Amino acid sequence: MSDSGQFATLWKQMAVGLGLEVDWIPGDWHHGVDPEAVSARLADDRAHAIKAVCVVHNETSTGIVSRIPELRQAIDQAGHPALFMVDSISSLGSIDYRHDEWSVDVTIGASQKGLMLPPGLSFNAISDKARAAHRQASIPRSFWDWTAMLAANEQGLFPYTPSTNLLYGLQEALAMLREEGLSNVFARHQRHAEATREAVRAWGLEMVAASPDDYSASVTAVVLPKGHDADDFRRLVLDRFDLSLGVGLGRLAGRVVRIGHLGDLNDLSLLGTLAGVEMGLTLARIPHNGHGVEAAMRALVAPVG
Amino acid sequence: MSDSGQFATLWKQMAVGLGLEVDWIPGDWHHGVDPEAVSARLADDRAHAIKAVCVVHNETSTGIVSRIPELRQAIDQAGHPALFMVDSISSLGSIDYRHDEWSVDVTIGASQKGLMLPPGLSFNAISDKARAAHRQASIPRSFWDWTAMLAANEQGLFPYTPSTNLLYGLQEALAMLREEGLSNVFARHQRHAEATREAVRAWGLEMVAASPDDYSASVTAVVLPKGHDADDFRRLVLDRFDLSLGVGLGRLAGRVVRIGHLGDLNDLSLLGTLAGVEMGLTLARIPHNGHGVEAAMRALVAPVG
Amino acid sequence: MSDSGQFATLWKQMAVGLGLEVDWIPGDWHHGVDPEAVSARLADDRAHAIKAVCVVHNETSTGIVSRIPELRQAIDQAGHPALFMVDSISSLGSIDYRHDEWSVDVTIGASQKGLMLPPGLSFNAISDKARAAHRQASIPRSFWDWTAMLAANEQGLFPYTPSTNLLYGLQEALAMLREEGLSNVFARHQRHAEATREAVRAWGLEMVAASPDDYSASVTAVVLPKGHDADDFRRLVLDRFDLSLGVGLGRLAGRVVRIGHLGDLNDLSLLGTLAGVEMGLTLARIPHNGHGVEAAMRALVAPVG
Amino acid sequence: MSDSGQFATLWKQMAVGLGLEVDWIPGDWHHGVDPEAVSARLADDRAHAIKAVCVVHNETSTGIVSRIPELRQAIDQAGHPALFMVDSISSLGSIDYRHDEWSVDVTIGASQKGLMLPPGLSFNAISDKARAAHRQASIPRSFWDWTAMLAANEQGLFPYTPSTNLLYGLQEALAMLREEGLSNVFARHQRHAEATREAVRAWGLEMVAASPDDYSASVTAVVLPKGHDADDFRRLVLDRFDLSLGVGLGRLAGRVVRIGHLGDLNDLSLLGTLAGVEMGLTLARIPHNGHGVEAAMRALVAPVG
Repeated sequence: MSDSGQFATLWKQMAVGLGLEVDWIPGDWHHGVDPEAVSARLADDRAHAIKAVCVVHNETSTGIVSRIPELRQAIDQAGHPALFMVDSISSLGSIDYRHDEWSVDVTIGASQKGLMLPPGLSFNAISDKARAAHRQASIPRSFWDWTAMLAANEQGLFPYTPSTNLLYGLQEALAMLREEGLSNVFARHQRHAEATREAVRAWGLEMVAASPDDYSASVTAVVLPKGHDADDFRRLVLDRFDLSLGVGLGRLAGRVVRIGHLGDLNDLSLLGTLAGVEMGLTLARIPHNGHGVEAAMRALVAPVG
Repeated sequence: MSDSGQFATLWKQMAVGLGLEVDWIPGDWHHGVDPEAVSARLADDRAHAIKAVCVVHNETSTGIVSRIPELRQAIDQAGHPALFMVDSISSLGSIDYRHDEWSVDVTIGASQKGLMLPPGLSFNAISDKARAAHRQASIPRSFWDWTAMLAANEQGLFPYTPSTNLLYGLQEALAMLREEGLSNVFARHQRHAEATREAVRAWGLEMVAASPDDYSASVTAVVLPKGHDADDFRRLVLDRFDLSLGVGLGRLAGRVVRIGHLGDLNDLSLLGTLAGVEMGLTLARIPHNGHGVEAAMRALVAPVG
Repeated sequence: MSDSGQFATLWKQMAVGLGLEVDWIPGDWHHGVDPEAVSARLADDRAHAIKAVCVVHNETSTGIVSRIPELRQAIDQAGHPALFMVDSISSLGSIDYRHDEWSVDVTIGASQKGLMLPPGLSFNAISDKARAAHRQASIPRSFWDWTAMLAANEQGLFPYTPSTNLLYGLQEALAMLREEGLSNVFARHQRHAEATREAVRAWGLEMVAASPDDYSASVTAVVLPKGHDADDFRRLVLDRFDLSLGVGLGRLAGRVVRIGHLGDLNDLSLLGTLAGVEMGLTLARIPHNGHGVEAAMRALVAPVG
Repeated sequence: MSDSGQFATLWKQMAVGLGLEVDWIPGDWHHGVDPEAVSARLADDRAHAIKAVCVVHNETSTGIVSRIPELRQAIDQAGHPALFMVDSISSLGSIDYRHDEWSVDVTIGASQKGLMLPPGLSFNAISDKARAAHRQASIPRSFWDWTAMLAANEQGLFPYTPSTNLLYGLQEALAMLREEGLSNVFARHQRHAEATREAVRAWGLEMVAASPDDYSASVTAVVLPKGHDADDFRRLVLDRFDLSLGVGLGRLAGRVVRIGHLGDLNDLSLLGTLAGVEMGLTLARIPHNGHGVEAAMRALVAPVG
């Protein structure tokens, strides 16, 4: 596992809580998971003690994506049999992701981000290799045990009370995504993300993501100038404009606000959001260059391609 | 009746259709109803043939309000017994209006504007003088006859199938207005209207309303430069931004778009709306000076009072 | 017009209110409109002073249907050019009705009965003959004038603010009716009506409808034994079982309760309803023979046809 | 743990899956958990190897309640320090239950039964003794670990994405229960359960619950006569009456149907349900004596107390 952000950190804590031993590759939270570091670690593991490489695709805490195909290559180059597990919770339905094509063994998704539903559903996509590993695993488990779910699912059932209302919602969410077309959905998120970054650049503020290759299409984390408390700023924006910005998480607490731009969002809602941030910066007397909304508008009316 | 806009015109047509004779004071659709013209006309009517003065408080077609208290004074100065009837449909719950204090005889309201409900409910506030006139009126009538409604209402009933679902909605709408406080609601509309006008001024476009005294707080009608079709512009903005601007009505058809800012609206939704207009102007290559959203933002963060 | 019930009476009042002269054929509220009486009245009218024959298809106040095809024949036999106007408000979508096939000139429908929607939409189906008459009519009118509606409808528009939310509801209601199939919908209503009557017969109570030929499929009006106040009974049933029975209207006030069985209703909801009536009769100590629910259950499980 | 039904069995499987050793007291699924058997088992455990006594309060699979206060006494009489854990999932908000008064250490509840919500929320009520045990427990855990939840809850937060929409629903559900009054809610369930049993007795069918002391107020499990497949019967009732009866679970599969009578249910919905069962029995040619709905109606109109 790699220290790529708060959700990677929470995943590590989960693993530790379940009695697993974690090999934790350090990270600065400004970059995606480094394929070379993963490859090197695996190459060192001659005994194949490492059972799985776990990566968060889109780190909601930092606005950074890790490049899954390159990580897949890194594992393959090391010739290591570890399973490849990916948390796609905040990218599923917002950023291109290919479980089969990228040979991921376990992909974890959820209902409450790009699928535009309340929280309550989670999904596991599982390779044959992962199912084989599951059959041999000895860790104690019950609710999260695939055995009962796989058996019940074959008959269209669940091993416990299903969240039927959310399944109806999922049906509608998938219909909406198909109606727009997945490639259009992904392009829309990229376009909104770029407009958001144009606003941030105009304001003269810094993003958490250090490299354009790692920019997330579903969330942008913005660093406030030193001496300005991000939570005070968030509170002002919420009180004044009914706009809820994401809190800085973990080591970014108090220094960062996060602008979400995923799910059922259009140009004007995005611009309303950016206007709320820009007016908030003014009201909070946080030094900035203004003109972010105008920069975003220019990006949105620019010809595509 | 005065030719203050499309809804005044439709009201005239209704009266004519019902067999009434209308004394129609001309107007240019750029000003509210002129108290002096009303007073003069009434003074000329020594025989008291005029039964009622009918005024649209807020003309949705032009974004112009008529000043009801001054019109009341005009009627009183003429010493004329005509009833005073006001259409408050698009001002009720958005712009200050006082049936009793302003001695209006019949006020007409509806559910689908400032009360934030679907269409389907209409309201009449009636003075004793209007009830007396109603008892003596000889015009044929049935559904619109107050007699049955007043009798049934006294027992909490309706003379025909009531729209119960809308009455529940009304209960909630009134609770929302009371929770915010009517004076706050009116101030919010004034603030949003002024921010909208600041945007229009920044763009360098003209408003239909010629005088600041007549500005509507719930809708702003904007004249497009000559040679630019307002309906083409509206279609572009709808297609590209899912934003529905009001059509130019009657003699303003094709030349005007209307920006609504009433009901359950907040700063960021207004700014998203104005951003849609500004980007639409750019995409439609309509000459304008830009910077309207920034002007509106400045207005919205300015200290009140 | 014929005195077939309360809604026929209200229609008469509406006509009188609008300044029309009504030739009112007496009725006992226990039978549908009598084709022979209509035919005789028209035959007497050599001068063709009668402009229209107006009939309520399904009288909600009595649970009695009038037989429209026989009335059409009666008009034709009299060789009279009167328009044939039918109120189908409480039969539309519940009881078979054929505007074109039965050569009706004006059919009036509404959203709040068999179309399962809130009140707020009304429909007119109009023959060419009715449109021709409309063009020559001189009665004052405005909101109810077909001219503006027909012109606007041709472009898919409305001459005033349309109830868009109800139009979406209508789309869904029509989809539901088509999914079940209109003939199945009508058969379901007949089956539920017959089960309801079996219950009434078992209880030993009388129906308002005197003849099986006139039974309504959407509502059954039941006469309570003398000395028992129908409104007291309705109140008890509402308080105790949250079941709202229809009030006795007009000359049936206080003596009759009405059991509605139209719209989105299934066997078990109907039986729950009948159980509420049966338990209410017991609690109110109204003499009855019980076993109504069992009789209805027998009717509902009996093989069809 | 005691073999009192399917949900007790599933709880045992969960415990085994998590690596716990279960001392499984046999049961016949026709009675609640036997306090004497529990007491005896605890008395034998001089070494206090038993860490917890786990009981399902209301067994949804059998329609049987276990008497928690007597089980509490049994534990106390044995002088054994085991924790007392109760699954109140299908009794919470439907059947009287007192976590504190009955000195339960862990009570488990959920949203989807008597709280009338979709599934998605679960609740743990925890005694100080249970919290102390939790702090010393060494079993691997993560999502179900109280530590993170207790820490976050103190600030009104959750350690992971909360189901906010269900929390709003819970607020409303609790308001509904308080408005009716908890003791009235419990009495209503008892009354509906007794009416249901009167129907079953009239039909001449057997209940799974052998003893009146153990009858559940929220669900009644009915045994079909030998030779009749319960799932065929359920399918017929679903197809014909749109009524979904509970499936026979575990060792009762194919022999039992379950009638739920909990949550937002009133007399007429219950009678509609029982009518569906009675007509289904007739249509499926399952021998029965009829008159169940009438028996239930008699029970429902009988004076209380």
